[in-house]
Amino acid sequence: MTNEIKIFSPATVANVACGFDVLGFCLDNVGDEMVIRKISKKGIYITKIEGYNLPYEAHLNVAGVSALALIEDANPDCGFEIEIYKHIKPGSGIGSSSASAAGSVFGINELLGRPYNNTQLTYFAMKGEAIASMSEHADNLAPALFGGFTLVKSIAPLEILQIPTPKELYATIIHPQIEIKTSEARAILPKNVPLKDAIGQWANVGSLIHALHTSNYSLIQRSLQDIIVEPYRSKLIPHFDDVKFAALNHGALGCSISGSGPSIFALSEGLEVAKNVEDAMKTIYSETGIEFDTFVSPINTKGIKILNS
Amino acid sequence: MTNEIKIFSPATVANVACGFDVLGFCLDNVGDEMVIRKISKKGIYITKIEGYNLPYEAHLNVAGVSALALIEDANPDCGFEIEIYKHIKPGSGIGSSSASAAGSVFGINELLGRPYNNTQLTYFAMKGEAIASMSEHADNLAPALFGGFTLVKSIAPLEILQIPTPKELYATIIHPQIEIKTSEARAILPKNVPLKDAIGQWANVGSLIHALHTSNYSLIQRSLQDIIVEPYRSKLIPHFDDVKFAALNHGALGCSISGSGPSIFALSEGLEVAKNVEDAMKTIYSETGIEFDTFVSPINTKGIKILNS
Repeated sequence: MTNEIKIFSPATVANVACGFDVLGFCLDNVGDEMVIRKISKKGIYITKIEGYNLPYEAHLNVAGVSALALIEDANPDCGFEIEIYKHIKPGSGIGSSSASAAGSVFGINELLGRPYNNTQLTYFAMKGEAIASMSEHADNLAPALFGGFTLVKSIAPLEILQIPTPKELYATIIHPQIEIKTSEARAILPKNVPLKDAIGQWANVGSLIHALHTSNYSLIQRSLQDIIVEPYRSKLIPHFDDVKFAALNHGALGCSISGSGPSIFALSEGLEVAKNVEDAMKTIYSETGIEFDTFVSPINTKGIKILNS
Repeated sequence: MTNEIKIFSPATVANVACGFDVLGFCLDNVGDEMVIRKISKKGIYITKIEGYNLPYEAHLNVAGVSALALIEDANPDCGFEIEIYKHIKPGSGIGSSSASAAGSVFGINELLGRPYNNTQLTYFAMKGEAIASMSEHADNLAPALFGGFTLVKSIAPLEILQIPTPKELYATIIHPQIEIKTSEARAILPKNVPLKDAIGQWANVGSLIHALHTSNYSLIQRSLQDIIVEPYRSKLIPHFDDVKFAALNHGALGCSISGSGPSIFALSEGLEVAKNVEDAMKTIYSETGIEFDTFVSPINTKGIKILNS
């Protein structure tokens, strides 16, 4: 058995318009790289961090905390070094902390001979995610570990469903370089919502799941509506309405906030449309003076990938 | 072309636990019979009603109002007589008015050579349904016209999705002979609901749709949970909790209120379990002194059926 593994841990989009707190999907072109190495000394040791300034102490680092949760359960007769090559900017809203939290447990699980399934890995990763977002949630972790579209049916007990991914779906992401704290994005939400709106939202969740099963792109379009959360959170993102209007106007099936923002995602049928949507988003933001970056990605149906081992 | 058609217009279950106002399914063993006859005199004439005491004036009768809505649009050079053999008790909560409203427009559409699709028929039928329930809704009409499981994605514009029906699903119904008015059952509901509960509900709607697509019976079981409406409406149904407990205890996948009640439905995997559930429900209610009846039915994937023409 190999003693070292290098992985790609992808960025992810949570909520997916109608599915606040439950739906997510996995991106392919942007993600962190991590090297996990089995060592004789017990414990978790973060030995290298490149890209962003993050804590080296395992119990303070998202990837470290999830790894510690795993080895507490597995109690292996060895330890692990973790190198983190961070490409997903923390706080960007495309699952930066989830990529770290999921990547470390995925890698350790491989080096231990896969004693855990993806749901169990998600459970450990939630412990790491919790120190970043102050709450245990899995809507970014699930797509990172399972790939494709996922529905977190419940947290306790943890149950994750893999929803089929239509072949021609592409995501476009714009990340405005502003800071929105997850805790702030949560605080802005109402405690109660009109029953009428909730009914509209669960109709959309149901129809999106049906549309993904049947590769019905026009139904995906009609389902990607968020009448509950987006009206509140979009106020935290400058020019959100303009970006959304431009994306839809250039053929996107839907456009909404990625996770708690500030990133905005669009889904399109076909790579060409997704690129047109990217250009349209760029045009809006290039006039604002706010730094931003954009990318287009297919939906990653594998999740975390092994680069070599 | 024939001038007369006899149809079976089935009972239906709306809401289906998690899917308040959007989900429904179609029953097979209980329904009304109707005869629709093309006549030279223009207009809609209800010529016979057996079973229950309902108005003969077309503009006051659910089947008449939906028929009038259709002929107002179609403007045919003829009229129609309608005979109604009512087997579904009005106010029972298994789509009695919907069976009438859907049956008349289905029959007339057949006699006119099918100018309308099922969504258009649902639209006309909603006009009839509205005089019974004081609001235009389609969660019983859609399964009666489309068959199987349906999701009413939206009312305006009207969009109905047909969800696959797993082969081994059977419904058990108990109808306590008490009266609950739909308007009363609506009034008891809160205007606002906790966001936390709404999230749980749309996770269940999403997972139920996924479970129906994948014939995953244990996931159907875990999805048939209503945390929004049932806690309020179940108070209007005597011994609801006992019936539900007994049904689940005898193997039902789920058990909740059918539409706005008072009928209670259960879904089970296999006919034998559904019959055991029926016995368990009977045992509970036979001790209450309240009149009731029960039946077991496969899911009717055809909807309204032509008996002869």
